[in-house]
Amino acid sequence: MGRANKSDIPEQPGPAVILVRPQLGENIGMAVRAMLNCGLGELRLVAPRDGWPSPAAQRAASGADSVLDAARVFDTVAEAVADLTRVVATTARHRELTQRVVGPRRAAAELRQWIAAGERCGVMFGAERTGLRNDDLVYADTVLSIPLNPYFASLNIAQAVLLVAYEWSQAGVSGPSETLVTNAARPATKAELANLFEHLERELDDSGFLRVPEKRPDMVRNIRALLQRALPTDQEVSTFHGIISYLVSKKRKP
Amino acid sequence: MGRANKSDIPEQPGPAVILVRPQLGENIGMAVRAMLNCGLGELRLVAPRDGWPSPAAQRAASGADSVLDAARVFDTVAEAVADLTRVVATTARHRELTQRVVGPRRAAAELRQWIAAGERCGVMFGAERTGLRNDDLVYADTVLSIPLNPYFASLNIAQAVLLVAYEWSQAGVSGPSETLVTNAARPATKAELANLFEHLERELDDSGFLRVPEKRPDMVRNIRALLQRALPTDQEVSTFHGIISYLVSKKRKP
Repeated sequence: MGRANKSDIPEQPGPAVILVRPQLGENIGMAVRAMLNCGLGELRLVAPRDGWPSPAAQRAASGADSVLDAARVFDTVAEAVADLTRVVATTARHRELTQRVVGPRRAAAELRQWIAAGERCGVMFGAERTGLRNDDLVYADTVLSIPLNPYFASLNIAQAVLLVAYEWSQAGVSGPSETLVTNAARPATKAELANLFEHLERELDDSGFLRVPEKRPDMVRNIRALLQRALPTDQEVSTFHGIISYLVSKKRKP
Repeated sequence: MGRANKSDIPEQPGPAVILVRPQLGENIGMAVRAMLNCGLGELRLVAPRDGWPSPAAQRAASGADSVLDAARVFDTVAEAVADLTRVVATTARHRELTQRVVGPRRAAAELRQWIAAGERCGVMFGAERTGLRNDDLVYADTVLSIPLNPYFASLNIAQAVLLVAYEWSQAGVSGPSETLVTNAARPATKAELANLFEHLERELDDSGFLRVPEKRPDMVRNIRALLQRALPTDQEVSTFHGIISYLVSKKRKP
């Protein structure tokens, strides 16, 4: 199983994902894909209803086989969390227990800190429909509640795993939040832009477009502002020179 | 259909979710659930493969029927985005076009700002496997790329919708950190831009600029991407029509 390198378990340490009494193998497989999407590689299963291994989980996990194959199965939550120092329980419900409740973003930041400090962490998710029981929650030191539309909050397991794993992955992202994909091109210099403006304005003068002297400065400024705002590449500046030249050329079809 | 109050379409304005050539009804239904989980209520479909309405979508959307029932279906991306002023395209791929690329968190913050300023916004998602084509991307002014495990980045549509909608829901409304000062002008609609592109391309065809058939599609896409990126106002679009007309006019100085 496994596709060369693509489905290898991430080497970066992360929290274990602990699915408690999961029912549908398909959901387990989808959860595993979501884990690997977000760089998480350690899966623990507590008493999966349909036994283990699960052909349905294998089908749904297509491409993420390595994570599935390395999953460990436990009979009880107590055994599944025995080696961990921090356990976060994901639940949409209000519970009777007095526990810290955090959102996914806060939980992700905390997990990063704990793991950086050498702690071993896990995030528990409950079964479809029933979720985690109070008897499960007592193994958790932190409750994670995903704030959603209060009138329509139900997520399936794989979606809940995706959101928590996504927040985990984003908590480790730094760098610019916006980039301009320019491929082989580079951003045009302001000199190249000035040259383009002169070319365009010369032709617009010739054509009569800028013939009203009192309006000319505003027109020119507006056109320049528009093109500046687009942050053209050097190639796009060349293209625009070509467009202007062709539009004004005499060799037009009859 | 619908379950009392639970599946009502959110009243809070949000971006439209635009699914382009979706294939499996089940994915449409799951995407609709993810939308409603996160408070989004406007769905637009472009050429759903299996027709519309879709029994499979209805089954999978269980509980979110109101959003599904209110979905609008279009033949083309152009029609689906015609009334919008901002279109964000979600894609995992590297593309040839020069476009702004942002992550989901930044995109959500920007969408909040734009919508608070009265703009009409949409987020496009491509078909299963194939995603959005370059011909779709030219209708977008912003590209949204979800940073995931580079060795395992594939998400299904419903998961991509969930992550984008989740970031939308998490982005609280706060003061804008960046705005586009448009003064008396308003952002051009995509229909106005499409009209401008047609005018320009018609004249470029006449002039011979686009005479090499195999290069034409790329040239046209690059020009469109540049002008989309500038987010022209309605006045600037008018100005550009004037520029084109004057450049090609016969009444030129000797």
